[in-house]
Amino acid sequence: MADSGWPGCSKSLKGVILDMCGVLYDSGEGDGVAIAGSIEAVKKLKASDLQLRFCTNETQASREKFVAKLQRLGFDISVSEVFSPAPAAVAVLKERGLRPHLLVYDGVLPEFDSVDKTNPNCVVIGDAAENFSYQNLNDAFRVLIGLEKPVLFSLGQGRYYKETDGLKLDVGVYMKALEYACDLEAEVIGKPSSTFFKSVLNDMGLQPHEALMIGDDLVNDVGGAKHCGMKGVQVRTGKYRPSDERHPTVTADGTVDNLSQAVDMILNQRRH
Amino acid sequence: MADSGWPGCSKSLKGVILDMCGVLYDSGEGDGVAIAGSIEAVKKLKASDLQLRFCTNETQASREKFVAKLQRLGFDISVSEVFSPAPAAVAVLKERGLRPHLLVYDGVLPEFDSVDKTNPNCVVIGDAAENFSYQNLNDAFRVLIGLEKPVLFSLGQGRYYKETDGLKLDVGVYMKALEYACDLEAEVIGKPSSTFFKSVLNDMGLQPHEALMIGDDLVNDVGGAKHCGMKGVQVRTGKYRPSDERHPTVTADGTVDNLSQAVDMILNQRRH
Repeated sequence: MADSGWPGCSKSLKGVILDMCGVLYDSGEGDGVAIAGSIEAVKKLKASDLQLRFCTNETQASREKFVAKLQRLGFDISVSEVFSPAPAAVAVLKERGLRPHLLVYDGVLPEFDSVDKTNPNCVVIGDAAENFSYQNLNDAFRVLIGLEKPVLFSLGQGRYYKETDGLKLDVGVYMKALEYACDLEAEVIGKPSSTFFKSVLNDMGLQPHEALMIGDDLVNDVGGAKHCGMKGVQVRTGKYRPSDERHPTVTADGTVDNLSQAVDMILNQRRH
Repeated sequence: MADSGWPGCSKSLKGVILDMCGVLYDSGEGDGVAIAGSIEAVKKLKASDLQLRFCTNETQASREKFVAKLQRLGFDISVSEVFSPAPAAVAVLKERGLRPHLLVYDGVLPEFDSVDKTNPNCVVIGDAAENFSYQNLNDAFRVLIGLEKPVLFSLGQGRYYKETDGLKLDVGVYMKALEYACDLEAEVIGKPSSTFFKSVLNDMGLQPHEALMIGDDLVNDVGGAKHCGMKGVQVRTGKYRPSDERHPTVTADGTVDNLSQAVDMILNQRRH
């Protein structure tokens, strides 16, 4: 049961953006597991007249491999529908002539194949889990501290995410670590950056007020979307915590038990 | 050559407090190496009428082993003269009935032998270098996030220090990481905490204005000492960087090339 409000905007909606991890599935060993009802919910959205995109800060694998995993879990999804930070970062690096030192998951490295990485003049970090060893973080630190004007890009700024075996520290934690070590401010690529959300809206050809973001991360999904003029709904799956519903600065336009319930509410409102 | 001012206080001085790593020696493989002139400088201070204490955020080993290392390097120093964060943390834990989950160097664990560590209700982190693996940081995070009122103690808040093979990330970086992950503020034990400096002054029976701190860390040594009412001088060894001399908020009372020069200036001023 949803015990919080629901945005009274379903009738004017033209598009929905879904976060992936914690909304569609919980990650963990192997492919992780689909969250109950979410495969069917995506099907219902696709059968509706709403546009649908997926927006993730997932940087553990290339988009191709990531989408293949979701397909194996049973989701009707294709690469062109998915927005993730690594391709966005590659575009920024090329535009500014920057050569990155990368501290990311091995699986996402192929996204950076086309980028010159010799004699690095910036650092890019993504969620790297076990690759966030002391040695690797220290190597990234030494690159930054050795630059005249250190530039740090962070693929997202999440605090933690949930895998099947529990909560895991996310990239934002290591971004803060390097920011403090080098006395700088990182440039965040991915949610909650408005630039990132706007690229998704552009792709759908929609204005912010015509779109709704559904995510499990109050700050990065809901807060980021609202900051950009969209509606934002939080699901009580994934990294949701009860204290999110009394967060000091971010209030969701609605809070529901899971994606299945969110989609039913949207589609029912549009029928009546 | 010192090209910055020197505090005009040497004649009224009654005690000197020395930082250790980066002032007495550079750490690294094995025992590290004594900084040129520093062994002789300590001898001169001990032969003077000034009181002398050593104040370190070093938490790689127990004080006993740490002091033994300095003795092997040639320094005239004893355990009772050295103030370090671990014994201070043990006192705080016992006073407040807290049971720590420890993320520290293996070598400093013996300092915590007398503390109950079952069913932890707080986390203590110290410089842990390679022990700051993703897994270990995540374990500490899970303890904190599982507590009703998470309490994090950090043994120092340094950004980085210098070993013979280069700069290394210090505990403050991981403190910031956990602060962000858990949305809390750590309690710092060690420099630059005034509580810590005052315990050293108490041991000498001196008022702040009667003592001078000499360190290589502008913020933690010099800034901490000045905040507490002492004079603070920076040496251009260890982690010193030229940009320290135009730091926006902390200005040393003097900057000298090394400890040897600092001690000569103090003792010469007192003679004339």
